[in-house]
Amino acid sequence: MDLIPLVMAISLIALIVAAYFARQIIREDRGTVQMQAVAAAIREGAEAFIRRQYSTIAIIAVVIAVVIFVALTGIGDFSRAWHTSVAFLLGAFLSALSGVIGMSVAVRSNLVSAAAAEKSPAKSLILALRGGAVSGLTIIALSLIGISVIFTAFGSNPLEAPFLIVGFGLGASLIALFAQLGGGIYTKAADVGADLVGKFEAGIPEDDPRNPAVIADLVGDNVGDCAGRGADLFESTSAENIGAMILAVALYPVFGLAGVLFPLVIGAFGLIATIIGIFSVRMKDAEHKNPMRALNKGYYVTAFISAIFFYIATMVLLKNIWFFYCGLIGLALSIVILYVTLYYTDERFRPVQKIAKASTSGSAMNIITGFNIALETTAINAISISVALLLAFKFGELSGVANGGLYGTAVATMGMLAPCAYILAMDTFGPIVDNAGGIVEMSKSSEVACQNVAKLDSAGNTTKALTKGYAVGSAALSAFLLFSAYMTEVSSYTGQAFEIVNLARVDIFAGALLGAMLVYLFAAYAIRGVGETAQYVIAEVRRQFRERKILAGIDKPDYAQCVDITTRGALKNMVLPGALAIVFPIAVGLTLKYEAMAAFLIVGTITGLLMALVLNNGGGAWDNTKKCIESGLYGGKGSDAHKAAIVGDTVGDPFKDTAGPSLHVLVKLLATLTLVLAPFYI
Amino acid sequence: MDLIPLVMAISLIALIVAAYFARQIIREDRGTVQMQAVAAAIREGAEAFIRRQYSTIAIIAVVIAVVIFVALTGIGDFSRAWHTSVAFLLGAFLSALSGVIGMSVAVRSNLVSAAAAEKSPAKSLILALRGGAVSGLTIIALSLIGISVIFTAFGSNPLEAPFLIVGFGLGASLIALFAQLGGGIYTKAADVGADLVGKFEAGIPEDDPRNPAVIADLVGDNVGDCAGRGADLFESTSAENIGAMILAVALYPVFGLAGVLFPLVIGAFGLIATIIGIFSVRMKDAEHKNPMRALNKGYYVTAFISAIFFYIATMVLLKNIWFFYCGLIGLALSIVILYVTLYYTDERFRPVQKIAKASTSGSAMNIITGFNIALETTAINAISISVALLLAFKFGELSGVANGGLYGTAVATMGMLAPCAYILAMDTFGPIVDNAGGIVEMSKSSEVACQNVAKLDSAGNTTKALTKGYAVGSAALSAFLLFSAYMTEVSSYTGQAFEIVNLARVDIFAGALLGAMLVYLFAAYAIRGVGETAQYVIAEVRRQFRERKILAGIDKPDYAQCVDITTRGALKNMVLPGALAIVFPIAVGLTLKYEAMAAFLIVGTITGLLMALVLNNGGGAWDNTKKCIESGLYGGKGSDAHKAAIVGDTVGDPFKDTAGPSLHVLVKLLATLTLVLAPFYI
Repeated sequence: MDLIPLVMAISLIALIVAAYFARQIIREDRGTVQMQAVAAAIREGAEAFIRRQYSTIAIIAVVIAVVIFVALTGIGDFSRAWHTSVAFLLGAFLSALSGVIGMSVAVRSNLVSAAAAEKSPAKSLILALRGGAVSGLTIIALSLIGISVIFTAFGSNPLEAPFLIVGFGLGASLIALFAQLGGGIYTKAADVGADLVGKFEAGIPEDDPRNPAVIADLVGDNVGDCAGRGADLFESTSAENIGAMILAVALYPVFGLAGVLFPLVIGAFGLIATIIGIFSVRMKDAEHKNPMRALNKGYYVTAFISAIFFYIATMVLLKNIWFFYCGLIGLALSIVILYVTLYYTDERFRPVQKIAKASTSGSAMNIITGFNIALETTAINAISISVALLLAFKFGELSGVANGGLYGTAVATMGMLAPCAYILAMDTFGPIVDNAGGIVEMSKSSEVACQNVAKLDSAGNTTKALTKGYAVGSAALSAFLLFSAYMTEVSSYTGQAFEIVNLARVDIFAGALLGAMLVYLFAAYAIRGVGETAQYVIAEVRRQFRERKILAGIDKPDYAQCVDITTRGALKNMVLPGALAIVFPIAVGLTLKYEAMAAFLIVGTITGLLMALVLNNGGGAWDNTKKCIESGLYGGKGSDAHKAAIVGDTVGDPFKDTAGPSLHVLVKLLATLTLVLAPFYI
Repeated sequence: MDLIPLVMAISLIALIVAAYFARQIIREDRGTVQMQAVAAAIREGAEAFIRRQYSTIAIIAVVIAVVIFVALTGIGDFSRAWHTSVAFLLGAFLSALSGVIGMSVAVRSNLVSAAAAEKSPAKSLILALRGGAVSGLTIIALSLIGISVIFTAFGSNPLEAPFLIVGFGLGASLIALFAQLGGGIYTKAADVGADLVGKFEAGIPEDDPRNPAVIADLVGDNVGDCAGRGADLFESTSAENIGAMILAVALYPVFGLAGVLFPLVIGAFGLIATIIGIFSVRMKDAEHKNPMRALNKGYYVTAFISAIFFYIATMVLLKNIWFFYCGLIGLALSIVILYVTLYYTDERFRPVQKIAKASTSGSAMNIITGFNIALETTAINAISISVALLLAFKFGELSGVANGGLYGTAVATMGMLAPCAYILAMDTFGPIVDNAGGIVEMSKSSEVACQNVAKLDSAGNTTKALTKGYAVGSAALSAFLLFSAYMTEVSSYTGQAFEIVNLARVDIFAGALLGAMLVYLFAAYAIRGVGETAQYVIAEVRRQFRERKILAGIDKPDYAQCVDITTRGALKNMVLPGALAIVFPIAVGLTLKYEAMAAFLIVGTITGLLMALVLNNGGGAWDNTKKCIESGLYGGKGSDAHKAAIVGDTVGDPFKDTAGPSLHVLVKLLATLTLVLAPFYI
């Protein structure tokens, strides 16, 4: 069977469906002139940021491609040099492209979703979900197309090509790093800046049109959540596919080409499952009071169909039922992690209730309790991930295939990532409805419209939190995969099996210590970036309030100026953490060499994942604590508990939307960077 | 040369000097009747807590000793069973004893230090330092005596005895775990409880005699900082000595018995250096305006003399100059870490200034900036520790001795821990002068006395922060040592060299992930313990204020009730994290076995150390930010920045005095627990 054409065909179908959704959105009712004006401002701001951000990243990408080419040529490996550089550029380009496409649809979906809000909240939901689906489908389809093309272009030799395409993953990592850092800093600096001056100093409500930073805040949702997470999961899926292909090389005698291309087939089938899942969310589902029900229904449909496809693909290509079970473990893990995240961040459950109660004793108790919960969230997640890996390995061994255990964990990762496009659609749904809320608010629409959108916005907050949990889980599985791929890669260089690391050696211990330290320092720089950029925004908002009669309603605020200042601040402040993430691992690798680098990688990965959980879930819990109190509990709006909860929410902002998500990306960047540069560490 | 008698003789001299200091303190002027009343209340509270705490721990210790005995007998190793159990009980007993002695002198020194404050602040300082020296000298001397006695009792066979005495380290770890957890929860629950109701709700100043929790707060300084840290460093020094002795077994052909006993000799010489250092701090040094100068002078004298002794011991016993250089690296590392800690937590430097400036934008910015700094502190520390380890290993190799590298790192650890008794004296100085401040304040002494003690108290805060940095650094070095000892231990069981761990195996990855997770969950439980105990204290203080006319000055508060409630709360809440720290590693070890356990240990250690740095230094920085603003900067007392800084300080309290220090202990407990239980994991 020709698998590559199959993967390409399905991916193209997914792109066509995405185009169909995009066309549907463009043709919808765009609401009032006021709405259109707000949406246009958001769109312009987002596009300006993305343009400038990608210009910066493009330069960095080209420089890195040249460095890789020269360095690899320098050690006499010309073939790998050009293969890796080309793959790198393609990975970077496609990641950026899918980000741009997804975002440009998102900044149009927000308007139509807002316009539909008054008459039909159900339609509003469906439009936002389909707007998100454009992102989801495009990202996964372009990743699959990219890998298929480059695999074919590099000669389709299943024993060689997987090693040559690792550059693709690195390109995707690089884009993800800067997209997430830049977007994450942008969104939270604008948010914190708008809130601190608007809400606290001037006493005007959130999303008030008089606030000069309000458009920047809405732009932030798109460039941070939408473009950032999109690049993150583009990378996850690419890296996972490549890692699994490398591991499949060892199983070539058993499975042949089918084993190597299996991950791509699963990815393609996941696209079909997602398309069915999206279409399964119908108007009558969306009419229910709780929007999460409609979104969840689509997810379960997607997961169920993915499982069926998984069964078919496994039986046809691998002819071994145990690998189907491995895939189910991955699917199951994704559901477990979603529920754990929900438990820790949703106001219906004990953790958020506890923080809310502690808030009645002031800000300090809110922070202490929230941090305590944040630390605690690592436990069930880590145990679930460990059990999933151990089981998948066991099932892989039970398959009777030699080296089947490791491949079993790879298949579990595929299972987890199979419904990825749907998860991405739910994720992008978040910023779309958040923006729709802002548009409705700023264009002075009816109370009904505001209430309808608020309900969707609340669901969007949940989906955003869930996606982050999912991203961490899939990063954990694919990190293990990439780590194993690194060991295989080093073995293929040295000609000796590299499976063992002498942990009692001092350089290994140092490597491990420095790997963990990088995570802390990187998080520190990412959080600092938000603080510094927020200072610019604060100064600018204060200046506008001082110099013009905005608060009295006489002068109009200069939104563009705020957007511009946030853009420049975010781009400037993404450089330090970005450079650290690239330069430090290389310096350690060149100094301490490949064994210490293995320890660096594994300990950095584990620390990064746990820290990301702490930051994401802590931030999510603080956010919902505020919402919980605003809904009237523990004193309600304006009470001391509410003031304490606002402090927690503000602290959580850079945790959950900048540092946390950047850490997922860092973890995968470490893996792909080490994979590509392995020859220099030997 | 008979080294054991030499070590015993020096240790006895140190105990005699400690007794001399204690006698001097008891004979000093005890101040007014009011002062004596306050001091008596503190003493009674502290002694009651220690009595109840150690009764609880004694039961746990006996149970564990029996379990170890039965389990080791069960696998047919009767000899190891009784050796280990006896060593365990002796280690636990001596650790507890040294804690009791040190604390009982500390709760007497506070009074004489307070009494001297008005007439001679210099004398006040010297008395407090000598009171602290009783702790420092007793702790190290008892550790050395204990190891010497048990080494001799177990037959003095240098090839066998080191393996039989690992139980001693575990006993010390267990006491340290509960002492630090219980004391840490006690001190911060009382502090937070007293502040939240007293300062914020009732609006009375800190240490006001009307606050029913004020005595509990002062008791907390003794049981947390003094007894807790004492047990922590008793364990560090014991574990380091035992670990180094185990590694020296491999070098027996080169160094003979001298190599095995070398760590004890260095420890003993460190005691002499400390005694000289303490005596070198004279009245005229103490008269200087900045008390840190006097304390630092003593430290430099101690370090310098330690270096000389190190040279002599190395040349006589090991006859190899390179190991002297290794020792210098350890000494140098201790100084570097002290300076790094000072930079990040002292208000004279940029980090605290930055947090203070951010506080002007509110509590959220104070927390965000403080957390950012806290994360950042890991960087220079981790790099310094890595460089020190790599250099020590290199120098050890350059010595030309086979396996000299690993021994080089052991010698560096000895260098770092040589001046340990002096560091402990400086550390215990902290709670003594803190208490003296409370006594002066509550007994309505003169303004001059208050000011004099406040200056000492500020120095005490610095020394406490420095000691924590030192404890982390020494924990890092001794953790590497113990890890290597674990590998050696496993090899001696399996009969095969266990040096390598296959990091690409899924159980190893799971072990590593769970090791890191334990640190986060343990920290969460420790912080939660403070929160829950503080709730009891808050309720009790509110009750007293409500039911009696305390605030009006008519009724007297019931201090004893608060002390009792805090005691019960702390003892109850230390159980969960304590049990977790013991049960979880054993469960993982029994399930995933010794290789995964190696990964568990190394990743748990690294995560624990970095997290401890984050919590300790973050807490220290927040504390001094508050002090910095109170000194008049950024708006001064009562300003919004000050309110924000108080939030940060309260958040930092359980970080720096409960969770952080408990993590050092956890790290070492993991190592000794794994060492002792290694046979079950094979």
